[in-house]
Amino acid sequence: MKFSIQKDYLVQGVQDVMKAVSSRTTIPILTGIKIVATREGVTLTGSDSDISIESFIPVEEAGDEIVEVKETGSIVLQARFFSEIVKKLPQDNVEIEVVNQLQTVIRSGKAEFNLNAIDAEEYPHLPQLSEEHVFTLPADLLKHIIRQTVFAVSTSETRPILTGVNWKIENDELHCIATDSHRLAFRKCSIDTNNQLPTANVVIPGKSLNELSKILDDTTDHVEIVMTEQQVLFKMKNILFFSRLLDGNYPDTSRLIPTESKTDIYLNSKEFLHAIDRASLLAREGRNNVVKFSTLEQGTIEISSDSPEIGKVTEEIQSEKIEGEDLKISFSAKFMMDALKAIDGSDVKISFTGAMRPFFIQPVNDDKTLQLILPVRTY
Amino acid sequence: MKFSIQKDYLVQGVQDVMKAVSSRTTIPILTGIKIVATREGVTLTGSDSDISIESFIPVEEAGDEIVEVKETGSIVLQARFFSEIVKKLPQDNVEIEVVNQLQTVIRSGKAEFNLNAIDAEEYPHLPQLSEEHVFTLPADLLKHIIRQTVFAVSTSETRPILTGVNWKIENDELHCIATDSHRLAFRKCSIDTNNQLPTANVVIPGKSLNELSKILDDTTDHVEIVMTEQQVLFKMKNILFFSRLLDGNYPDTSRLIPTESKTDIYLNSKEFLHAIDRASLLAREGRNNVVKFSTLEQGTIEISSDSPEIGKVTEEIQSEKIEGEDLKISFSAKFMMDALKAIDGSDVKISFTGAMRPFFIQPVNDDKTLQLILPVRTY
Repeated sequence: MKFSIQKDYLVQGVQDVMKAVSSRTTIPILTGIKIVATREGVTLTGSDSDISIESFIPVEEAGDEIVEVKETGSIVLQARFFSEIVKKLPQDNVEIEVVNQLQTVIRSGKAEFNLNAIDAEEYPHLPQLSEEHVFTLPADLLKHIIRQTVFAVSTSETRPILTGVNWKIENDELHCIATDSHRLAFRKCSIDTNNQLPTANVVIPGKSLNELSKILDDTTDHVEIVMTEQQVLFKMKNILFFSRLLDGNYPDTSRLIPTESKTDIYLNSKEFLHAIDRASLLAREGRNNVVKFSTLEQGTIEISSDSPEIGKVTEEIQSEKIEGEDLKISFSAKFMMDALKAIDGSDVKISFTGAMRPFFIQPVNDDKTLQLILPVRTY
Repeated sequence: MKFSIQKDYLVQGVQDVMKAVSSRTTIPILTGIKIVATREGVTLTGSDSDISIESFIPVEEAGDEIVEVKETGSIVLQARFFSEIVKKLPQDNVEIEVVNQLQTVIRSGKAEFNLNAIDAEEYPHLPQLSEEHVFTLPADLLKHIIRQTVFAVSTSETRPILTGVNWKIENDELHCIATDSHRLAFRKCSIDTNNQLPTANVVIPGKSLNELSKILDDTTDHVEIVMTEQQVLFKMKNILFFSRLLDGNYPDTSRLIPTESKTDIYLNSKEFLHAIDRASLLAREGRNNVVKFSTLEQGTIEISSDSPEIGKVTEEIQSEKIEGEDLKISFSAKFMMDALKAIDGSDVKISFTGAMRPFFIQPVNDDKTLQLILPVRTY
């Protein structure tokens, strides 16, 4: 194997596949990055066996020569060193050559690295997915959907299925649900398609979606999504992102969401977020970051929190409108802040059905997102 | 005590004095910030007993009213909460009031914090320094001098005196020396003065200088420096920074610095720094981050490093000039990078007196700074 390559493209490709490489893997070869040079270009692969990322650097792009392949071949290099080295090379051009079976030379200007490599034959093969179940989403929308749901997955391994986000396709709509059983994030969107999509119901690990969202750019470029029983594949321009799916049945969360409400409160989202943030400064010290929320006269809301050692905080904000019964309720300031940050739009509607029942937050006049929170008993 | 204050000034003042507050103090009251309101303004104080910082916010600055003192008095508030709270207050104006002996209310807009406070009488008094030994330096120069020396202090408590920087005044010159016994940083500067300064020889803790340098701005505003037997005080505009001095005699380092050299090498500082940085990528894994440096034909320098498991790196750089004998030497890549980053100017001269003797680096044609490194035996 021997090729020369523009440094910027190599650095970007290595950075992308590094998102799948873990230093804590139990499979030694997965601490490496696989490099394959063909007449078409150079392919880099990184994997931690849950996530695999493949980045392709073509020999030419828009008439620009990016790679010159002098000899095809493949090799695996230690990811940690390889990624550090390419970033610090002195010239814009890099030459990579396997000089004998497992010795690889990286040259740039007057700098020459000679690395011990591993045979590429030992690197596990990426899954081969049957492409029956495919749909597309714009990259920026996909990124947004991830951001609005993934924060609510469980971080505990007691119920492993809850560490993932449930993706369901039904009637050409995608529904994404995440819950840690104390709060729930929901987001739906319609999928443009010519022929109706088959139904699907999978659970994608939260960690995979977090890594994917770091690679997605804020363009409307379409991402092709291939779903199978055990794997999901996101195809971007020159990047393939594979993730395994979680085994097991995701709980039916539809019954959790109240269908009616006794109190609806309309608030400015930012003002409310800042008030909760301040109240949580003291709440953090006390019991579980809990703040109290109660309706006062004339549309005023009181938010308060106290910690016997430190002191207490009281804050009033003016709602846009309160419909229905008066209310006193307590909830986690962190959950509320997470939910408000995930909601688009300047105004939110919060729907309560009593102090001990789950309540939900939605942008005003928009049912595509819903954030549900279970209250805490304090009153 | 009752006053209202512009939020920005309060936030800045709290941020400055927080640099002295440690959460790990054994003296409970030092987890607080002392607030004193007088007719002249508000004074904030933070201390960890080694460092004490006092920030004064005047009632008026350049015709602008900053503080309105309604009732003089003093109180101590928990630093961690107080600093978080003031940053997040909703309005540009803040009111602070002691409502009964130890309850303090912080109001801004519709937000009201009620904090448990501590009696200011319990707060330790700042040292009273006799101002016999005073000189001034511009803030930017003082900051620069600290940056060029403090990184070389020892981080080990085996010889506590080496965790500080030795400041000596002799013949109206300030000499600053730091060493961890493997390398040494030296910087001198002349002090403008009308009447000759008395000699002085103190050791300022490295930690104190690091904190001071975060407060110093990049202006030529003069900082007044007061030295006594046990304390040093840096007086800036509206800020007093006190540090205790280290006890004991600083070793005489003058004999360590070679007075003659056998090989002088002139190099471009940046190019050399980057080459060492690359070589150190593999050196870090091996023995102690050591790189090899040797002169080749025609003014070329070879820098190399190898780690049996990972591989090796060889790099050539072209010196501007080599005077004297050929040389092969090994040294810590980290020490060399630290030294090069601390040196001003684009070109450096490195003076060697043999492979096993300390060598030093200086900007070309400038003897105000000197960085000394002890080599490592590998050849």
